[in-house]
Amino acid sequence: MSDTLKPPIVCAEVLVAVSYQSQPFEETDLSMAHEYVVTFQPSGRRGPVSLGETLLQAAHALGVEIESVCGGKGTCGKCRVHIESAQHEHLSPPTEAESRLLGAKALAGGMRLACQAQVQGDVQVFVPEESRRLEQVVRKEAGESTVPLDPAVKAYRVKLDPPTLTDLEADADRLLEALRTQHGLAGLAYDLEVLRSLPSVLRAAHWQVTALVWRGEKVVAVAPGTDDRAVLGLAVDVGTTTLAAYLTDLASGLVLATESAMNPQVAFGDDVIARMQHAKHNASGAHELQTAVVNEVMELARKAVARSGATLADIVDVVVVGNTVMHHLFLGIDTSGLASAPFVPGLQGPLDTKASEVGLAFHPSCRLHVLPVEAGFVGADNVAVLIAERPYAQDDLLLLIDIGTNGELVLGNRDRLLSTSCATGPALEGAHLEFGMRAAPGAIERVRIDPGTLDVRFKVIGLDRWHTEYPQSEVKARGICGSGVIEAVSEMLRAGIIRPDGGFAPGLSHDRVIFQQGKPWKFVLARPEETALGRAITVSQEDVRAVQLAKGALRAGAEILLRNYGASQPERIILAGAFGTYIDVEHAVNLGMFPDCDPSKIVSVGNAAGDGARFALLNCGRREEAAWVARQVEYVELATRKDFLDEFVKAIRFPGASE
Amino acid sequence: MSDTLKPPIVCAEVLVAVSYQSQPFEETDLSMAHEYVVTFQPSGRRGPVSLGETLLQAAHALGVEIESVCGGKGTCGKCRVHIESAQHEHLSPPTEAESRLLGAKALAGGMRLACQAQVQGDVQVFVPEESRRLEQVVRKEAGESTVPLDPAVKAYRVKLDPPTLTDLEADADRLLEALRTQHGLAGLAYDLEVLRSLPSVLRAAHWQVTALVWRGEKVVAVAPGTDDRAVLGLAVDVGTTTLAAYLTDLASGLVLATESAMNPQVAFGDDVIARMQHAKHNASGAHELQTAVVNEVMELARKAVARSGATLADIVDVVVVGNTVMHHLFLGIDTSGLASAPFVPGLQGPLDTKASEVGLAFHPSCRLHVLPVEAGFVGADNVAVLIAERPYAQDDLLLLIDIGTNGELVLGNRDRLLSTSCATGPALEGAHLEFGMRAAPGAIERVRIDPGTLDVRFKVIGLDRWHTEYPQSEVKARGICGSGVIEAVSEMLRAGIIRPDGGFAPGLSHDRVIFQQGKPWKFVLARPEETALGRAITVSQEDVRAVQLAKGALRAGAEILLRNYGASQPERIILAGAFGTYIDVEHAVNLGMFPDCDPSKIVSVGNAAGDGARFALLNCGRREEAAWVARQVEYVELATRKDFLDEFVKAIRFPGASE
Repeated sequence: MSDTLKPPIVCAEVLVAVSYQSQPFEETDLSMAHEYVVTFQPSGRRGPVSLGETLLQAAHALGVEIESVCGGKGTCGKCRVHIESAQHEHLSPPTEAESRLLGAKALAGGMRLACQAQVQGDVQVFVPEESRRLEQVVRKEAGESTVPLDPAVKAYRVKLDPPTLTDLEADADRLLEALRTQHGLAGLAYDLEVLRSLPSVLRAAHWQVTALVWRGEKVVAVAPGTDDRAVLGLAVDVGTTTLAAYLTDLASGLVLATESAMNPQVAFGDDVIARMQHAKHNASGAHELQTAVVNEVMELARKAVARSGATLADIVDVVVVGNTVMHHLFLGIDTSGLASAPFVPGLQGPLDTKASEVGLAFHPSCRLHVLPVEAGFVGADNVAVLIAERPYAQDDLLLLIDIGTNGELVLGNRDRLLSTSCATGPALEGAHLEFGMRAAPGAIERVRIDPGTLDVRFKVIGLDRWHTEYPQSEVKARGICGSGVIEAVSEMLRAGIIRPDGGFAPGLSHDRVIFQQGKPWKFVLARPEETALGRAITVSQEDVRAVQLAKGALRAGAEILLRNYGASQPERIILAGAFGTYIDVEHAVNLGMFPDCDPSKIVSVGNAAGDGARFALLNCGRREEAAWVARQVEYVELATRKDFLDEFVKAIRFPGASE
Repeated sequence: MSDTLKPPIVCAEVLVAVSYQSQPFEETDLSMAHEYVVTFQPSGRRGPVSLGETLLQAAHALGVEIESVCGGKGTCGKCRVHIESAQHEHLSPPTEAESRLLGAKALAGGMRLACQAQVQGDVQVFVPEESRRLEQVVRKEAGESTVPLDPAVKAYRVKLDPPTLTDLEADADRLLEALRTQHGLAGLAYDLEVLRSLPSVLRAAHWQVTALVWRGEKVVAVAPGTDDRAVLGLAVDVGTTTLAAYLTDLASGLVLATESAMNPQVAFGDDVIARMQHAKHNASGAHELQTAVVNEVMELARKAVARSGATLADIVDVVVVGNTVMHHLFLGIDTSGLASAPFVPGLQGPLDTKASEVGLAFHPSCRLHVLPVEAGFVGADNVAVLIAERPYAQDDLLLLIDIGTNGELVLGNRDRLLSTSCATGPALEGAHLEFGMRAAPGAIERVRIDPGTLDVRFKVIGLDRWHTEYPQSEVKARGICGSGVIEAVSEMLRAGIIRPDGGFAPGLSHDRVIFQQGKPWKFVLARPEETALGRAITVSQEDVRAVQLAKGALRAGAEILLRNYGASQPERIILAGAFGTYIDVEHAVNLGMFPDCDPSKIVSVGNAAGDGARFALLNCGRREEAAWVARQVEYVELATRKDFLDEFVKAIRFPGASE
């Protein structure tokens, strides 16, 4: 209809056409889709959109990334877009949510929320920098630790005696007999898929084949020849925000490739609640979520095998872990029970099935093992952390802290294990703050504040050194990610900008401290000329409060577990997940995030959930341990604890002498 | 392009066009399909056909039934069709097979073999009456006998306690606990499909549900409510020629509907050899055969549930039986091992899988059990006969004779069971004889010959009484089916038309006895005016020889089994299958078809294979018996027996004093 940048005269023409078309709007049969052309800038993506679709839906359909933390409910205000004033009438009138979140002035200036504005004509949409969803920098590398090799799928090379007129044993029985006499395997069954090609494979291979046997129970594949061939497994950690996949050689235990990506379900809502609502309120919502994540796992697998010189058909076993909602959505299990009190999962125990049952297209007989969940929202990812770190095999009292998008704690040792989940909120991941963002390029991740001058040094993701070592125009900070928030608040506490109760120090006067009557205090981390936004990136009083609430919930949960166990402090603290990997322990301790513990005994173990998934892939004993430990962990429901509120209120304070 | 009957002028036009098109024939890229219009009369079916396709392929594609016993190999000569002489050039030139089978005169008259003639232009094809494949009259009714009810899938009604804040058991475990405490079922697993909807089903049903459990091992379905609901099974007998399906109520054991149809694989060849060749020589041949039979089973099921007021989703268990090749083709198992010596099956043992694995679309979790085969070509249908008749539970020495398209014998009792398969050929089913046909309307099925006058009375399928009670013009005999052949030859023997050695009595002079120098003797069963063919239906010397060979093989096989067992005669003979149902025992005895036995001890049990399939559906104990007995039966390979030829030669003779 037009080029990427449409001259005004064409717009005018379109406006006329639209007025004509919108005339009989009330009487129109909506099933006769009126289609308009929507163009997104600066990407230039353009496509047909039906009357009544929101700009966010159009963006999803056209592959344009727009931030949407609330999943399109009109509550987060992240999906701001700009419309040329000439085209205001090509969209539905502003909603109450837009008036509240944007204000009259912004609306008048052409700002809209993409989730609210419905298409009623051709329209050009500008997606500002801060509304663009960027690919997160994902650093979920496979850990170094390993387990003894005892995978579920093993290869056995066998040579069979061909049938004769006096030996008419059926092919299937002939192979089982060879596996029995040559490898001591007895009582095996078959996948039908294997039987289908068995006669031709045996004959083409001159009766020398390699059989893949699952758990000593079932022949799942038979291939010609007895040469070594790749027998690969895929361990998958389905995080709410991030997927990580580890392509692993089942014969050597080596990780051949690690791949990660955003969980594409993010497009349907950033947190588990938004996704369950999407599943509930859309006829094919659960299916959409399921296929989205499975397709992305396939994509990761494709990259991993390409990098390793393997093929998808070499993958014969898959282990998946994830929190309870991710676990259910991945398997396509209805989340009704998880969506409202008393919050019970549909499935708690481990699951063995064919990978093809969930849509994973690897070897046709590829198996899938899904670790059990514990209780409520303490999921299979936490079980994976447990079988990776094995507190149940140790004497030391361990506190495991795993904060991804949700926060889970386990306290215990070989005597007893307690778990809980804390409503930390997304602040510790940098979300729901005014300038919060994911750990993507441009995010401030490290902060130092000079207590004397209040001068700020920070590091942004994508630049190696402190920002002061670059020309201002190259810094281009875009926001603050989780570790940056922790450091900023910690440094503000140290520098006396905020007090232990979290409030801004009264009477502070500095050009980085902004106070306007009726608005929250703010501290300027990055000056406008150091950002890609054209305005300052600040930490506000409200941001500090969000961090206080998050760390308060975490700390209170840990204290409740300690009290429940009958201990005053853990002997070791293990930080798992992205939070643990990037956070600076000293700053976290400075904020009082953890219970008292020798700082040298606080260690970060990286993606322990991924390690656990790999271990379950490589060692069936760990699967048994997982099934067992998931039942052993005593879940402590904080909501029903009378002492939680007291602990929480105490823990909201930052450490410090003053008060 | 034209109406059903095309005026000559249009043909001429086409002829010109064809000459033009066929000019560059050698250089033409065949992938650029030249398409012509082929019309079949008298059905009037018409459609586009690509250059080079045979008329038989075109007929299959357009749903026109043309007889093809050899599966299109140009050996049976059954697929004769007639072409207008003006259109001779619209087909490829006659092949050597056509010259041999049709002769120059018939070719000149416009007769062609549909499997040989390739389309090179628009053409009108007339399919004569005798070449039309009619739907066979199938009379495989479910037997009356029953078994104690112990089906694999049973329904259990349960009421669950809803979860509370102090009872957070997962839904899956909660249901298992209820099944354990309320029905004593322990250690159950789940189908993933069931888990997917379990949370919503339990909540929508207010925690009162009916669970279907397979073999006390696995929950395969959970439905809301605790009312009685239909729990149905389908027993399927996959014959080489005929499919029979019995829709059965698993709670009562009652057969709700019996449906049968031709095995659609007949289109790819009438016998198991032709079908294995089709599977071997066509890239998607095995898949074609598999989907053809599965689709027809679906069709039978659709009819059966419609007749019973049920739905396809009510079917939760399926049992399938069939001879070894049918068994393999149904499951999609490669038949390499069965196609050449030493003839070993791919799979011998029983198989449990999901019905959906083979393409059966009933309840999503519907199970499929396939009975084991015995050895070589003694298949799961024979095992089904065994579990229906249970010779292994009796003292009497039984001879079981099951002749469908293949002939199988079992001799034995509780001490020992011997089996063999005989190359009876298709004569006993009426095929491969000059006027042989399936048991379809118009087939002569009963014959009486007056020994004095040699007058003939016969009955045709479709008319209740002897043909002499109808006006000649209403008789419309089309051929002779299996039971008719047996009776005709038996009556010819009694009347002295043939002698015990099978030869026509020399010097016999009667207007029904035709002898032309250099051609075989013939006996006229139906005069031209009594047939739909416009010519006499006869039994020739060659037809008698075919019957002799068939009964000789059958009898010799039985004698070898008796000798092997160490007995001189069986105490009872059981005739199973269509052959046993329709054959007149007295005539068969008259031909010496069976070993010596008290005629009152020769009984016909109908479709015992179907009974066995139903029993396996209703009683898991019979499945165990089947797995056991399939291993117990000692297979006697006639080909390697030195005494077989002697027995065979002796058995070729008919009984009788003369010689």
